[in-house]
Amino acid sequence: MQVAETIAEIRACVARARKAGKKVGFVPTMGALHAGHASLIDAATARCDYVVVSVFVNPTQFGRGEDFNRYPRPFEKDVAICEEHGADAIFAPSAAEMYPRENLSWVTVEKLSEPLCGRFRSGHFRGVATVCTKLFNIVCPDVAFFGQKDAQQAVVIRRMVADLNMPLEIVICPTVREPDGLAMSSRNQYLSPGERKDAAVVYRSLSRGRELIGAGERNADVIRARMQATLQEVASVSIEYIGIVDAETLEELDRVRGRVLVAVAVRLGPTRLIDNILVDAPPG
Amino acid sequence: MQVAETIAEIRACVARARKAGKKVGFVPTMGALHAGHASLIDAATARCDYVVVSVFVNPTQFGRGEDFNRYPRPFEKDVAICEEHGADAIFAPSAAEMYPRENLSWVTVEKLSEPLCGRFRSGHFRGVATVCTKLFNIVCPDVAFFGQKDAQQAVVIRRMVADLNMPLEIVICPTVREPDGLAMSSRNQYLSPGERKDAAVVYRSLSRGRELIGAGERNADVIRARMQATLQEVASVSIEYIGIVDAETLEELDRVRGRVLVAVAVRLGPTRLIDNILVDAPPG
Repeated sequence: MQVAETIAEIRACVARARKAGKKVGFVPTMGALHAGHASLIDAATARCDYVVVSVFVNPTQFGRGEDFNRYPRPFEKDVAICEEHGADAIFAPSAAEMYPRENLSWVTVEKLSEPLCGRFRSGHFRGVATVCTKLFNIVCPDVAFFGQKDAQQAVVIRRMVADLNMPLEIVICPTVREPDGLAMSSRNQYLSPGERKDAAVVYRSLSRGRELIGAGERNADVIRARMQATLQEVASVSIEYIGIVDAETLEELDRVRGRVLVAVAVRLGPTRLIDNILVDAPPG
Repeated sequence: MQVAETIAEIRACVARARKAGKKVGFVPTMGALHAGHASLIDAATARCDYVVVSVFVNPTQFGRGEDFNRYPRPFEKDVAICEEHGADAIFAPSAAEMYPRENLSWVTVEKLSEPLCGRFRSGHFRGVATVCTKLFNIVCPDVAFFGQKDAQQAVVIRRMVADLNMPLEIVICPTVREPDGLAMSSRNQYLSPGERKDAAVVYRSLSRGRELIGAGERNADVIRARMQATLQEVASVSIEYIGIVDAETLEELDRVRGRVLVAVAVRLGPTRLIDNILVDAPPG
């Protein structure tokens, strides 16, 4: 497995693979890899002949006061996980390699970047869309793999790729969970043992929402209220949002219909956690 | 020569060329081709093995009240010029092919889009950057060719390509002029015979600026005032701007130094004309 720190190096790696007729898969990450990322690498190696994993904590997607500086960077462990799951190359650039001068060029995705996390993380999706554009232009993959865990990111990136005719396919892979339902996240390691136990309430609240829809409840306010009650069973949780939104447009729903994204963001102490499930509301 | 109207068709053409090991050149245009465009196609055929010319009047780079609807679309003449100059394919999509749904994803280039034409054409460079991104992602060229005539566009596109790591080279070709110095432009055909004669004053004013710098004048206000006096010799001309700016940052200069972009925008009746020259201020 190659570890490339420069754009020229990773481009040379991919060019060799492509020359050999290989299909190139790409898993963009911020490192601190866990079983969720590993499942993306597995999906990529299953579908592609040459798999690149990028490890880059992208400064432009963090807001002021967010956790850019303390975001975990266990690089040697990340390399081991990539190797173990059959990645062919890691692209691990420095911030100076990715942003060698003041960045003036930005990719924005209107409307889809505004609700849910967009209300709480100003500029976040602009940073995500811009760095993904850069990474796609550097790696030139045939397929890129993202996790459903970051549901709004998945919707934003899919739309960006479609609107801007980017020549690659986007595959969204299911969220990987701990036994108690907590979605795998690099930020889970910020949690104290008590917070970690409390964090399971996030998935319990999502499951409550799914049950209600399955039982025929169509009033989104009722579902939100029940989910809120579930979250409030744990005193340490403060709710940022509970979204019952159209899975494609991310517009808040009054009545549940079609494919629905049920999404939650909370704070547990200083740690921000997000999670979501997709639910197909049965007709009628 | 192929004429492709769909994204799938032009991608198939380029894929065949690339499979045959050909270097792909690209000349994006809005059609109404003239000798300036022809020189871009000539530059492309000289440097590349397979040359695509796009002909697309891009709605997103026109403001309200601008000339989108009456912009000339002499498609058969355009095809003949492309053929004559050795282009291998024309990509001439419909607006619905390029924008099949509400476009939510935009590429913006901060700072460089704001001065000069940016002050008078709100959203113009966002539309240009976005459509060029789309076209680059569709055609996937090795090299794309633009004219120096649209100096600010050239600076914006170069910076966008650098910032976003787009995998192509940008070549800027010299402005082609009529015998009286008027820069070739598709919009010149809007001019009445009298306006056409008057229009030569634009290049005379630029030449005046260059002479002054060559003669050692370093005070940009003095140069602007002399250029303004030259333009005002023609009563039908109304001045939009006279820019004496850094050729890279487009920042207005007080003292002329280094590589300077001398740029003018005027209106002659309803017709907006722009032109510019690059001048290297001799040291001292």
